[in-house]
Amino acid sequence: MPTVGIDIGGTKVMAGVVDADGNILEKLRAETPDKSKSPKVVEDTIVELVLDLSDRHDVHAVGIGAAGWVDADRNRVLFAPHLSWRNEPLRDRLAGRLAVPVLVDNDANSAAWAEWRFGAGRGEDNLVMITLGTGIGGAILEDGQVKRGKYGVAGEFGHMQVVPGGHRCPCGNRGCWEQYSSGNALVREARELAAADSPVAYGIIEHVKGNIGDISGPMITELAREGDAMCIELLQDIGQWLGVGIANLAAALDPSCFVIGGGVSAADDLLIGPARDAFKRHLTGRGYRPEARVVRAQLGPEAGMVGAADLARLVARRFRRAKRRRVERYERYEKFAEARRSPSESL
Amino acid sequence: MPTVGIDIGGTKVMAGVVDADGNILEKLRAETPDKSKSPKVVEDTIVELVLDLSDRHDVHAVGIGAAGWVDADRNRVLFAPHLSWRNEPLRDRLAGRLAVPVLVDNDANSAAWAEWRFGAGRGEDNLVMITLGTGIGGAILEDGQVKRGKYGVAGEFGHMQVVPGGHRCPCGNRGCWEQYSSGNALVREARELAAADSPVAYGIIEHVKGNIGDISGPMITELAREGDAMCIELLQDIGQWLGVGIANLAAALDPSCFVIGGGVSAADDLLIGPARDAFKRHLTGRGYRPEARVVRAQLGPEAGMVGAADLARLVARRFRRAKRRRVERYERYEKFAEARRSPSESL
Repeated sequence: MPTVGIDIGGTKVMAGVVDADGNILEKLRAETPDKSKSPKVVEDTIVELVLDLSDRHDVHAVGIGAAGWVDADRNRVLFAPHLSWRNEPLRDRLAGRLAVPVLVDNDANSAAWAEWRFGAGRGEDNLVMITLGTGIGGAILEDGQVKRGKYGVAGEFGHMQVVPGGHRCPCGNRGCWEQYSSGNALVREARELAAADSPVAYGIIEHVKGNIGDISGPMITELAREGDAMCIELLQDIGQWLGVGIANLAAALDPSCFVIGGGVSAADDLLIGPARDAFKRHLTGRGYRPEARVVRAQLGPEAGMVGAADLARLVARRFRRAKRRRVERYERYEKFAEARRSPSESL
Repeated sequence: MPTVGIDIGGTKVMAGVVDADGNILEKLRAETPDKSKSPKVVEDTIVELVLDLSDRHDVHAVGIGAAGWVDADRNRVLFAPHLSWRNEPLRDRLAGRLAVPVLVDNDANSAAWAEWRFGAGRGEDNLVMITLGTGIGGAILEDGQVKRGKYGVAGEFGHMQVVPGGHRCPCGNRGCWEQYSSGNALVREARELAAADSPVAYGIIEHVKGNIGDISGPMITELAREGDAMCIELLQDIGQWLGVGIANLAAALDPSCFVIGGGVSAADDLLIGPARDAFKRHLTGRGYRPEARVVRAQLGPEAGMVGAADLARLVARRFRRAKRRRVERYERYEKFAEARRSPSESL
């Protein structure tokens, strides 16, 4: 009973058919329509991808993991920094056009769900997921339930202030965690050092032939793996801030496990090692309490897509059950009506 | 069906008989035994208070709200900064001596429970409680359930880092939130200004006749109410940091309501006003999301005691039900046995 999962990020849309064990049967990609375009253009992209996949698969439900703030009813996208949605009733619009059950959730929530079902956080009863991409996404899973808060937007860890008066964040504040521990932070620091023609940056300057704008996150990870000292240090800095932030979350939430995902987590031990060290060094009450595990996510960039598909499966199952109940109710009524028509025979 | 609630803080132990509506029928106080004394001395104090109250009341259960970290089974106090408990099986020890059901919880959890049942947070489905005392206590209540995390110590908001490399905290870290927003922070700042003989501190210096060590939190609140500019500013500073911290918690947890309690909350609008302003100014995504209410706690310093008593009531009820089931089971067995003895008569 395959379902489709769709991950909508700031730059690309990923759509895939996923089976009940989390296996991806087919995958498509598209560019995310420009922020200046109307919300309908993004909808069109989603509908096209689903119809395309439906040609070859018997799609029973569609799940969307969106890089935006989804309301408590999981219908409206309240706000999406990289998309044109503002209080957009995405679920209802898509359900109208797709004729199958549609589920909408935040992309970090769906990634966390996937890691809990099939990945690094399998079976953890108190899981916190951190996705380090361009920014920081977050999710809280308790006993297999995504915690959304009162209005649906819990888990926005990236906008907790870690440095008073620190770097400006597009969210409107200063010193947000994601300004210190994310792909964007990594690239900003590298470009700054390169632009200042710092001796520590000569390696990467040479690598991009002086085109500082070409410096990217994956490039920094690659150079760090090859032993570039500056790139190793930058990942250490990001990892250190990651550790401080998860120590803060441990103080507040005391989870059993932190799963670290997102693009930057590809740096693996170059990032997670320093993060673990800083976590252990900053955890309040260390030595007097059990400590959460800090592990790297296992499902890679497809986690959001797989999670969205799996969450949609749950919704579809609920729909089917409700439908079955309706049918049964109707059949009971029919029986009853028939009995009343011919009382002598059946009563 | 009255139960006893006991609030154990760093300086005093409060014990009270509380009815099912949260009314305090009688209240006793004692000094908290010195940290250097053995854990048994604190137990003795608790037992004495309960026996004293039992002389005049039919006590059915005892609830303890302790200023310490309580494990997930709510039996052991893992760690208490102001008490001698280290991994102390408090519940079992007291249950052995008191012969009624005993419940142990963190003091901020029990205060939050009281505010949710009888106070400012009545019926809120996503409540976060902040108690500003000497430090910061915290609790998360969701649909009337205290969230404890995996190991029982969730809600330690006071030890989230808000200033990198900031003030030293006895927890072992630097820059913890409670070093900037608490009674201790308030007193530290006032004493520092007074010790520096700052002109802004002349009012309070005169008030304590130069004995800077006499400056206390309630005194600062009192002087602020009388219009002392420095004391007003200090409460604003504490309030501002309170607002920043709850904006961080709103990013992570998205609650419907923050309840601000603890001794410092007696300053009321002198504290909560600046806190609300800073919260609104620091909330990520402001303008694109519904905002949590920020309200002052209603039950005052007795909240922890009332909450502990009420939580104990729940436990006692569960005990009674289990006992009734045991009795019923026994009666069924008796009937059955009798039937077997005289089959002719009853079958």
